[in-house]
Amino acid sequence: MAAPVAPEAVRRVTCVGAGVIGGGWVAHFLARGYQVTAWDPAPDAAQRLRRLVDAAWPALTELGLAPGASRDSLTVAATLEEAVAEAEFVQESAPEDLELKQDLLARIDAATPAEVVISSSTSGYGMTEMQQRCATPERLVVGHPFNPPYLIPLVEVVGGERTDAAATSWAARFFEAAGKSVITMDREVPGFIANRLQEALWREALHMVAEGEATVEQIDASITEGPGLRWPFLGPCLTFHLAGGEGGMAHMLDHFGPSLKSPWTRLEAPELTAELRDRMVRGCADASGGRDIAELVAERDRAVIAVLRAVRSVREGGA
Amino acid sequence: MAAPVAPEAVRRVTCVGAGVIGGGWVAHFLARGYQVTAWDPAPDAAQRLRRLVDAAWPALTELGLAPGASRDSLTVAATLEEAVAEAEFVQESAPEDLELKQDLLARIDAATPAEVVISSSTSGYGMTEMQQRCATPERLVVGHPFNPPYLIPLVEVVGGERTDAAATSWAARFFEAAGKSVITMDREVPGFIANRLQEALWREALHMVAEGEATVEQIDASITEGPGLRWPFLGPCLTFHLAGGEGGMAHMLDHFGPSLKSPWTRLEAPELTAELRDRMVRGCADASGGRDIAELVAERDRAVIAVLRAVRSVREGGA
Repeated sequence: MAAPVAPEAVRRVTCVGAGVIGGGWVAHFLARGYQVTAWDPAPDAAQRLRRLVDAAWPALTELGLAPGASRDSLTVAATLEEAVAEAEFVQESAPEDLELKQDLLARIDAATPAEVVISSSTSGYGMTEMQQRCATPERLVVGHPFNPPYLIPLVEVVGGERTDAAATSWAARFFEAAGKSVITMDREVPGFIANRLQEALWREALHMVAEGEATVEQIDASITEGPGLRWPFLGPCLTFHLAGGEGGMAHMLDHFGPSLKSPWTRLEAPELTAELRDRMVRGCADASGGRDIAELVAERDRAVIAVLRAVRSVREGGA
Repeated sequence: MAAPVAPEAVRRVTCVGAGVIGGGWVAHFLARGYQVTAWDPAPDAAQRLRRLVDAAWPALTELGLAPGASRDSLTVAATLEEAVAEAEFVQESAPEDLELKQDLLARIDAATPAEVVISSSTSGYGMTEMQQRCATPERLVVGHPFNPPYLIPLVEVVGGERTDAAATSWAARFFEAAGKSVITMDREVPGFIANRLQEALWREALHMVAEGEATVEQIDASITEGPGLRWPFLGPCLTFHLAGGEGGMAHMLDHFGPSLKSPWTRLEAPELTAELRDRMVRGCADASGGRDIAELVAERDRAVIAVLRAVRSVREGGA
């Protein structure tokens, strides 16, 4: 793979596909001060895209625009080839259809300058299967965002079997420079990390509605009034680390381990081997970064109060 | 069942068990201005309980105490019988052990004035199995809180087969009066609602760690930097309603329905029947309360920004 421009030096970004996710990427890159070229085959794409960017702009302005950021930095190209011709980075956000993505990525690959990294927003396909028809598959990576990409920081970066490790690390550095929070995965796993987790929750929710065990409103309230208030600050592992009281994750697993066998969801739990237990306990120690349980609890309490207040102020100020 | 005091008139609450959850209930009820009596068989329970209440008090003060709320309103009783003798409501938060809970609830039932509702914090047992040894099972309900009970509003209320419906609705009204957000379930389901949802996510997380697909830190970051930022405000159903763009949940299910069959988690998805589809679509329409997608998107953006800022301010101000 030819040496691309340094990730921090990128100025021109191309977004292929301008639906909810592609359009959200456009809004994000504009707000971070990039020159953005977009292309989408839908006849009304340019109009919908400008509507989406206009709707997002007040939020982005409030969060703080990069110097020079402007909605005028958006160009909607007439053809895919024109769109990518001068790109320094390409983000593809086409509909979730493997055949379509394979063909589109091959077209993007053929038209994009050889040294430029191409990233796909796919929410579940592996790059190994998507890059099959590309002439230079080594520069293709997955860069999976969350909706809306202009507000939710996470991007999961992972290459396919034929991806050059240099492209994966270039993409991770580029996304960081563009203001995202990056998780670089060493292995391709269907659904990556966050989608697997939220999909497990979502499938259980669908089962509950299908069985008449809970309504849509009860499911949503059970999260927004409950565990959802902790998750912007404490992930599921540290949440349970604190549920163990002063003994932390070790106490939690030793004490509640048997409840993994309870019929609480339709998902079978893994065997809680000594190795898995130790990995969880060590992981929580690492993630705590030297803070003991009392410090974590105090910080969680401050965070939950701040989140509660933030949400209340929006609810009261809203329609 | 004899008529209890009106739920809004309760002044004296007894908490049986004073660990992380029971102690959290004590802190909550004290902050709401109740007279609280606690009992726990552990020799150092009183000392640990006061430490927990002291640790929580700054947070509770910041959130706003009820008139007359005071840590001095806490009494630690020497015996269970003494603790419940004058209670107007009893919350049991003993360790999660069915035998232990069956015996303890029978003892509480025997010692508590006949008209008083008794609630269990169990995180997974059904009241039907827990109330088996009680002489007056009709006044026993589940009132399942989330950690910490003094900050997370949710309480799931559900009775057992022998519970009087009047006790369930009394408990729901009491918890509302005590400042909680209540979901009353019509049916006993193992794990209730929120725990089933978060347990599905948790089991998938454990599988990923066990398989070496993700680390504890990656799992936590995938939530705190990603979907976790939406969940304090939008539950999983409304989140996906917005992921459908202007077509909402109907478009989402019609478009992404097939991805339910993807191997994204180890949990099998339910069949997406026409009936389930319609239930989800109608549920989202109900939950939207007349707000269209554009209004929901604007509100979500304001909420995510407020939550991001809240979390940042805590991280920056923290240790």
